[in-house]
Amino acid sequence: MLDFNDNSHRRHNILTGDWVLVSPHRTKRPWQGKEEEVIIEERPSYDPSCYLCPGNERAGGHKNEEYKEPWSFTNDFAALKRDVPEEKFKSGLLKAEAESGTCKVVCFSPDHSLTLPVMDVAEIDKVIALWQREFRELGAKKDINHVQIFENKGAIMGCSNPHPHGQIWAQRTIPLEVTKKCKQLTEYWNNNKVSLLSDYLKQELQAKERIIVETEYFVALVPYWAVWPYEVMIIPRNQHRTILSLTEEERKDYAKIIKAVTIKYDNLFKISFPYSSGIHQAPTDGRDWDSWHFHMLFYPPLLRSATVKKFMVGYEMFATPQRDITAEMAAETLRNLPDVHYSKT
Amino acid sequence: MLDFNDNSHRRHNILTGDWVLVSPHRTKRPWQGKEEEVIIEERPSYDPSCYLCPGNERAGGHKNEEYKEPWSFTNDFAALKRDVPEEKFKSGLLKAEAESGTCKVVCFSPDHSLTLPVMDVAEIDKVIALWQREFRELGAKKDINHVQIFENKGAIMGCSNPHPHGQIWAQRTIPLEVTKKCKQLTEYWNNNKVSLLSDYLKQELQAKERIIVETEYFVALVPYWAVWPYEVMIIPRNQHRTILSLTEEERKDYAKIIKAVTIKYDNLFKISFPYSSGIHQAPTDGRDWDSWHFHMLFYPPLLRSATVKKFMVGYEMFATPQRDITAEMAAETLRNLPDVHYSKT
Ligand SMILES: O=P(O)(O)O[C@H]1O[C@H](CO)[C@@H](O)[C@H](O)[C@H]1O
Ligand SMILES: O=P(O)(O)O[C@H]1O[C@H](CO)[C@@H](O)[C@H](O)[C@H]1O
Repeated sequence: MLDFNDNSHRRHNILTGDWVLVSPHRTKRPWQGKEEEVIIEERPSYDPSCYLCPGNERAGGHKNEEYKEPWSFTNDFAALKRDVPEEKFKSGLLKAEAESGTCKVVCFSPDHSLTLPVMDVAEIDKVIALWQREFRELGAKKDINHVQIFENKGAIMGCSNPHPHGQIWAQRTIPLEVTKKCKQLTEYWNNNKVSLLSDYLKQELQAKERIIVETEYFVALVPYWAVWPYEVMIIPRNQHRTILSLTEEERKDYAKIIKAVTIKYDNLFKISFPYSSGIHQAPTDGRDWDSWHFHMLFYPPLLRSATVKKFMVGYEMFATPQRDITAEMAAETLRNLPDVHYSKT
Repeated sequence: MLDFNDNSHRRHNILTGDWVLVSPHRTKRPWQGKEEEVIIEERPSYDPSCYLCPGNERAGGHKNEEYKEPWSFTNDFAALKRDVPEEKFKSGLLKAEAESGTCKVVCFSPDHSLTLPVMDVAEIDKVIALWQREFRELGAKKDINHVQIFENKGAIMGCSNPHPHGQIWAQRTIPLEVTKKCKQLTEYWNNNKVSLLSDYLKQELQAKERIIVETEYFVALVPYWAVWPYEVMIIPRNQHRTILSLTEEERKDYAKIIKAVTIKYDNLFKISFPYSSGIHQAPTDGRDWDSWHFHMLFYPPLLRSATVKKFMVGYEMFATPQRDITAEMAAETLRNLPDVHYSKT
């Protein structure tokens, strides 16, 4: 019989319809390639040269507010701009469309030295409250049909500033990854009249193999079809289409599980663990989206140590994503890590 | 009207059906993030510690042949293995399948110091001949339905050894990227009875804007829907489903254009330019694939300089690929670079 710990196999991603190649025996491969730098820095609470610290001046010439709580502003070098007229271009086989939108920067804290895992739950709760505010306001605009909240953490993830912050890119069209999920979620909803992720969560809670942390209202697990070595998904137990319908109690619990997951991450290699995280939610195009069930994903690149990452290159770019350790191995490792941040022990 | 040089817009990839977000105004953004190391090394023609040099011992304990010409062997730490019995697994929402295949390493030259742009056309021609041999042999196996030829070049692309080499991963199932292309190519073929890429090439040759190099039988261009900053596609003028039907003259010409493109690349920042390249061809599943038209793609990560790359992170992972310079800007830059390698002038 198929031995998941030894035989290469493909796993199906129920949310996108895609497949991932799993090659568990490949961890035996010696690594002679690139090693990343580990930057262990003591950061001050305020850095006069940081363009995200309160009161400082940014590259664009604007001055930051003297903010005391999570604070957001429009990106000075936004990839998306408002008021690009809706226009389609077609010439033979070439097809393009104007895209309109907004890019915002969300400072998680005025304190330059912090990161999510070392922030208080109450502080993270305020970050989520700001995400909610932004999601509501941006999503309400007639020409914004999708709002992507995300964080790039660590230089290895293209993050150009260690000040704790994330981003929001909101736009007219619904992006590729979300389009795939809309399709899969709707199909399941139509056939079963229950959310795909509710049923998936039920199955994972029975199997227990891939669960990392559980709180009252949320579960964090390594999805069966994880692509990144220590990929994690946070799913609310109740089917919320977006973060807007969370009760205050649930929101605080969401903050709790974000802290718990990111503490596990930092404890894995005893460094500030790099990742990109993102929240996938129902589009804001005014349709009903009964089928949606929001969830948060963490895509961390590190594989073997603080310095050896998984490269998604040749084969992965031209063929299919590939991973070396199974989701079950990754989940077990993360589950068994301490719940207290290594810097506090 | 939509100004491609100033307005953010989406472009359609006719080969995959996906879209890319283009934000040309974003190049004005100052870069304060991670800078890559530039490793400028004089490499010897033979390195006793290299596991790919002729006669040397590899990590697995095997000894390399004393090869004088391009040479291939089975990867000692293959992600895919033969003779995994065809088996499907399903439990509730979890779905997996055994995957079977082979991974080979293709040494381009016995000379440790070389790279494709500094190899002779005749030597590159021999590499292509080896690709043909491998593609024929692997593709003929009953349980191999797809053969992916690719190269990861440079440490930044996860390449663990600078010895000039590429890889071939051959497997039972048809990978994601190729499945998308099969669909798009077939649809166009059924509607138009001509290859999608032949028609696309015709249009590009008229527009001239995105062409980089032309040879007798091949054209290299930056595709309209390019994702990577200096992405390049090499298309044969004649519709070949795979590299197997190339005449000897065409094969030599293919070698010529690979050399020309990679010389341009090295000349861009005057370094050995990192990239992943891959050849997309018709599957080897025994079906006819009249619609296929093989092509080679180069995905290089560098954006602004030898040290600043484009990060495909947060937004790109959760939403849609995004690029900063337009395909036309990239093509113009590459087109205007000298045709002689910078090390020879
Ligand atoms: O096989 P290599 O060169 O050791 O490994 C490299 O290429 C593979 C195929 O693209 C990737 O899966 C690995 O992540 C990368 O490090
Ligand atoms: O906006 P930043 O942080 O300067 O830029 C970073 O995140 C963006 C959104 O994921 C990416 O497009 C950039 O490549 C990356 O460097």
